[in-house]
Amino acid sequence: MNQPTISITLNGEVKEVAADYTGVELFSDDKNIIAVSINGEPRDLNTPLHESDTVDAITLDSPEGLAIMRHSATHVMAQAVQEIRPDAKLGIGPVIKDGFYYDFDVENPFTPDDLKEIEKRMKTIIKSSQSFRRRVVTEEEARAEESNQPYKLELIGLKEAQIEGEEATEISSGELSMYDNVDRDGNVVWKDLCRGPHLPNTRYIKVFKLMRTAAAYWRGNEKNPMLQRIYGTAWSSKDDLKTYMSKLEEAAKRDHRKLGAEMDLFSFPEDIGPGLPVFHPKGAAIINAMEDYSRQMHRKHGYSFVQTPHITKGHLYEISGHLQWYKDGMYPAMHLDEEHDERGNVTKQGFDYYLKPMNCPMHNLIFKSRQRSYKELPLRLFEFGTVYRYEKSGEVHGLTRVRGLTQDDSHIYCTREQMRGELKSLLEFVLQVLKDFGLKDFYLELSTKDPNKFVGSDDVWEEATATLAQVGKESGLELVDDPAGAAFYGPKISVQARDAIGRTWQVSTIQLDFNLPERFGLEYIAADGSHQRPVMIHRALFGSIERFLAILIEHYAGAFPAWLAPVQVQAIPVADEFAQHILGVVSRLRNDLVRCEVDRSDDRFGKKIRNAAKSKAPFILIAGEEDVSKNAVSFRFRDGSQLNGVAVDDAVTWIQQAIAHRAQINSVNDFVANTDAVQA
Amino acid sequence: MNQPTISITLNGEVKEVAADYTGVELFSDDKNIIAVSINGEPRDLNTPLHESDTVDAITLDSPEGLAIMRHSATHVMAQAVQEIRPDAKLGIGPVIKDGFYYDFDVENPFTPDDLKEIEKRMKTIIKSSQSFRRRVVTEEEARAEESNQPYKLELIGLKEAQIEGEEATEISSGELSMYDNVDRDGNVVWKDLCRGPHLPNTRYIKVFKLMRTAAAYWRGNEKNPMLQRIYGTAWSSKDDLKTYMSKLEEAAKRDHRKLGAEMDLFSFPEDIGPGLPVFHPKGAAIINAMEDYSRQMHRKHGYSFVQTPHITKGHLYEISGHLQWYKDGMYPAMHLDEEHDERGNVTKQGFDYYLKPMNCPMHNLIFKSRQRSYKELPLRLFEFGTVYRYEKSGEVHGLTRVRGLTQDDSHIYCTREQMRGELKSLLEFVLQVLKDFGLKDFYLELSTKDPNKFVGSDDVWEEATATLAQVGKESGLELVDDPAGAAFYGPKISVQARDAIGRTWQVSTIQLDFNLPERFGLEYIAADGSHQRPVMIHRALFGSIERFLAILIEHYAGAFPAWLAPVQVQAIPVADEFAQHILGVVSRLRNDLVRCEVDRSDDRFGKKIRNAAKSKAPFILIAGEEDVSKNAVSFRFRDGSQLNGVAVDDAVTWIQQAIAHRAQINSVNDFVANTDAVQA
Repeated sequence: MNQPTISITLNGEVKEVAADYTGVELFSDDKNIIAVSINGEPRDLNTPLHESDTVDAITLDSPEGLAIMRHSATHVMAQAVQEIRPDAKLGIGPVIKDGFYYDFDVENPFTPDDLKEIEKRMKTIIKSSQSFRRRVVTEEEARAEESNQPYKLELIGLKEAQIEGEEATEISSGELSMYDNVDRDGNVVWKDLCRGPHLPNTRYIKVFKLMRTAAAYWRGNEKNPMLQRIYGTAWSSKDDLKTYMSKLEEAAKRDHRKLGAEMDLFSFPEDIGPGLPVFHPKGAAIINAMEDYSRQMHRKHGYSFVQTPHITKGHLYEISGHLQWYKDGMYPAMHLDEEHDERGNVTKQGFDYYLKPMNCPMHNLIFKSRQRSYKELPLRLFEFGTVYRYEKSGEVHGLTRVRGLTQDDSHIYCTREQMRGELKSLLEFVLQVLKDFGLKDFYLELSTKDPNKFVGSDDVWEEATATLAQVGKESGLELVDDPAGAAFYGPKISVQARDAIGRTWQVSTIQLDFNLPERFGLEYIAADGSHQRPVMIHRALFGSIERFLAILIEHYAGAFPAWLAPVQVQAIPVADEFAQHILGVVSRLRNDLVRCEVDRSDDRFGKKIRNAAKSKAPFILIAGEEDVSKNAVSFRFRDGSQLNGVAVDDAVTWIQQAIAHRAQINSVNDFVANTDAVQA
Repeated sequence: MNQPTISITLNGEVKEVAADYTGVELFSDDKNIIAVSINGEPRDLNTPLHESDTVDAITLDSPEGLAIMRHSATHVMAQAVQEIRPDAKLGIGPVIKDGFYYDFDVENPFTPDDLKEIEKRMKTIIKSSQSFRRRVVTEEEARAEESNQPYKLELIGLKEAQIEGEEATEISSGELSMYDNVDRDGNVVWKDLCRGPHLPNTRYIKVFKLMRTAAAYWRGNEKNPMLQRIYGTAWSSKDDLKTYMSKLEEAAKRDHRKLGAEMDLFSFPEDIGPGLPVFHPKGAAIINAMEDYSRQMHRKHGYSFVQTPHITKGHLYEISGHLQWYKDGMYPAMHLDEEHDERGNVTKQGFDYYLKPMNCPMHNLIFKSRQRSYKELPLRLFEFGTVYRYEKSGEVHGLTRVRGLTQDDSHIYCTREQMRGELKSLLEFVLQVLKDFGLKDFYLELSTKDPNKFVGSDDVWEEATATLAQVGKESGLELVDDPAGAAFYGPKISVQARDAIGRTWQVSTIQLDFNLPERFGLEYIAADGSHQRPVMIHRALFGSIERFLAILIEHYAGAFPAWLAPVQVQAIPVADEFAQHILGVVSRLRNDLVRCEVDRSDDRFGKKIRNAAKSKAPFILIAGEEDVSKNAVSFRFRDGSQLNGVAVDDAVTWIQQAIAHRAQINSVNDFVANTDAVQA
């Protein structure tokens, strides 16, 4: 008897298999395969296959496999929570980077002891080898099954456009499905409305760990009830979990908020408000070094500096359109200049003023302030422009998500013919500056047109996108596509930088804009006398000073290269009788604007050395009896290596050399390699 | 028969005169004396004298005499206006610097033709030699006499504290008086409620001129009716008027608003709003040069830079007290972070945020961010802090009165023992910087305690005031007293600078503050371990960048010293075939960050030279055939003098020298004097 067959494509090859085959049969010899990708969509391993399907294996340790394991882990966690707190109402339980969470509506927040208990229960559930079973349900059936889960009821029947952020890994607006957890006796012991896919059974959850709890509004909206969120992580091996945990530990050590406080760089005073950093002298010293260098580079590269106010009549943002499509990100209006008569009647209309969330409209006014000729183009306007954007107070985070940020903001106006050359030199410039700050490992992301949401003509988009792609390729860097990821007004290339511990940060962006030149009616007089629309490019290099500083702090773990270090020289007299000698050296260095501190406290020498290490100064200068007698100083570096008895003149010169070379000096070897210093 | 006599003091000498003597008899031989000062108060010449009076003559050409003449001229003007427009209601007609005005409530504003007509009538009145006669009246009589003058009625009976600004030269809260204008036949032809004094008769108004009209709210309050103001000026000789008019003309030529537009430095776009300047590339170039220099100087002088946000919770300004006593000068609040439930009930209270009008409270938070030791003092915090202050839209003026201003703001915290040294070096520092900007002519003003309005102990005030006075004297500059002129929180010394045409501008201020350290509870640990309050000094050097830029533009009439000039080098090829040569020179200069422009327009050479003069660049570089053949360029200076055939290497070096020396280069002689250049 001939079994019916279907032909599928497996690993790129066409193959005939029995018509009732699923991934289970197909990959029965490889226990590491826990799901399948059917025609590009991840599905449960036991999903029926159909004629002409393209099938690929998903292994547990692949990114897709890990995501599926983590998703299954959220179900196990929710099951465990409901065993302990049967009244817990379920929110959503999606997968996130490196882990997962689930939100619960519970009477009392979870305690650390609760987490331990939940972990214990989860281990029992995992060991009991429950299988995940998918059932397609109608909206009516889903409502009936989830009748005592108000949040799930709210999710059922959501339209595509209403599904936001992490909800998308949980539910789709298409087919609704329930996942049953089935024990070894075939009993359904737990179930959840879920998009899936899931593991074949809980045993595949190799290692997991609950991380922390947090409060979170249902669907991220402050008008909704506050739920309790439990974060967890899961990995395919204990080693992977260990690697992840030590990476977290390393990141925590480098956390710019922690180092910012320890190194006295900045604070967020309660009396001022969240997301509004105050930079103390040492933090401002780094910012000044960053800005000085940036200013110099921009001057050398033909930028014209401008300066614009922080507030404006709302009308400007009506012209630009921001008040229509960006109002939520703006601060509320201040109403000014309204005049009244004695009876309080308005005799003169006032104006709504706003804090600026963007500099571009003001730069456009400068472009427009007089007639422009093609001979003036490219015109590259540059400003350290501080903008204010309304972030919810719960969502601000250190210096990476703030309410006030200073952009190193440039707007470039050029002809269409100049666009290619301009984009090319712009990308080169951006990368050079980033490298000078010690970031070396980049890739590029090219965000292209969303066909459903764009302004401007197809041919301009095509030309611009092709130019960005070409310029990106010419840089020799990896170029990753972000299809349909562009803003409605133009394509963008962004520079993604990997830091010292391998994390990726989006830094610079080069963004074309086909919208604002139209809205502002920008024009220049071409060589033939005709009026032409310029091409407009937005470019932020650091992104913002605040965020870039955070990246640098974490990249260097606070131990900055000599030119950026808030304290460049930490001077320590071995005893107070040698203080005058070292103060003389410091005075010379300060005169050359080297940032020095002198420890004249009553601490013992050893304590002073330990305190100096905390300041992360690249140069600890020590003066003892022998140094004084020889008119010398001794260097101590971050790794503890020393260079003793350096003549004062040499010391001063070499420190200046290290600063001028923007060198990273962690050791005597670094010092010798980057200056004229010689090792005795 | 013995006439009764009284003894008076005249010119410092005691003198017996007839008891019915007035200034008329006393000074009958000097027609230049038009009023008297009796016991320090200016009075009409015919005011009766009393026993023991101290009497001094007031001549027509003295400052007091001119003020009296101008006051009489306002009466003549008002009389003329009422002859032409009998229904005109009178506001006030006070004396101001160099002139006078009168406000009228009239149906239609005055036209230029009206002004001519009024001038003509005034001349007739003056020629008719009407005398001014003072009558003391009761409040009741005054009300009866002014029954059809509603504004005068409002003034009658004002309390001292209600009399504001220029009203004080018009009316006092003491005795009320009417001034009658009496013709040669003894008829009263006009009268006005007025404090006086006045000229003996109209003939003493030697020369006058009506200047312009303006609209002005009654008593400066927008809730009141709008009146029509006529400004005039009057002098004791035609020459003085001529000098005054040409000074005005010179000032108009230097007006920074006019030059700012002509030189493309800045603008006030309608779409942004009044008082909010936008700096174009050339304006920002000057500001950058100012700031770079300032930053360098502050670093060398041991200042610690900080950076603080532009907005804050109102609470900070409650601590500082600004929300109590400075609220009118602040922008309205932005209410943030209020949360609501679904029914709109507030579930979390929000906060009022304000744009900062001052940086000091934020600097205090930095001081307070950790424990401070006496070893850290003096701590000198510095910031280019942009503050926003609400000025009425009708009162903003160019860059000198703006709504957003960037202060070069420093707050110094020191011990009481350090106060003297700190104030002394501070004043020296301030004067050095001002001199480097080319201001050379200063005097100091010392504002001392208002005994009715101060905080802090008498001995601290005394010590601080004595120290300021001593430091002021040691500077060798003229020290002018401003008794009771200090703010309630501490005495102040301010630097007044005279510009190129003799006008005085208040620039730097050094202000002690005995209030904020208390309000913020600022403390440091003294050498003996005790907690001590630091002395706090506010110091703005430029005052604000915007206002100081305005002063510099007017001082230099836009022709800046080389280091500040927005365009330092204006390059002109004699013909386009020489453009490559001069572009090579420009490229070298630009690489050294010299600000260059090249005129490659199709204009003829002569036109290019005239355009270059308009840019006010200190160096016009010209390249013709001979220059190219010799690898040279030719210099043209502002006065038209030239230096031809300068080798390119020399040209580049000498231009850099002139910039580095901060030299003012108007001529070849200036160039030779300030660089290694030699005149051929």
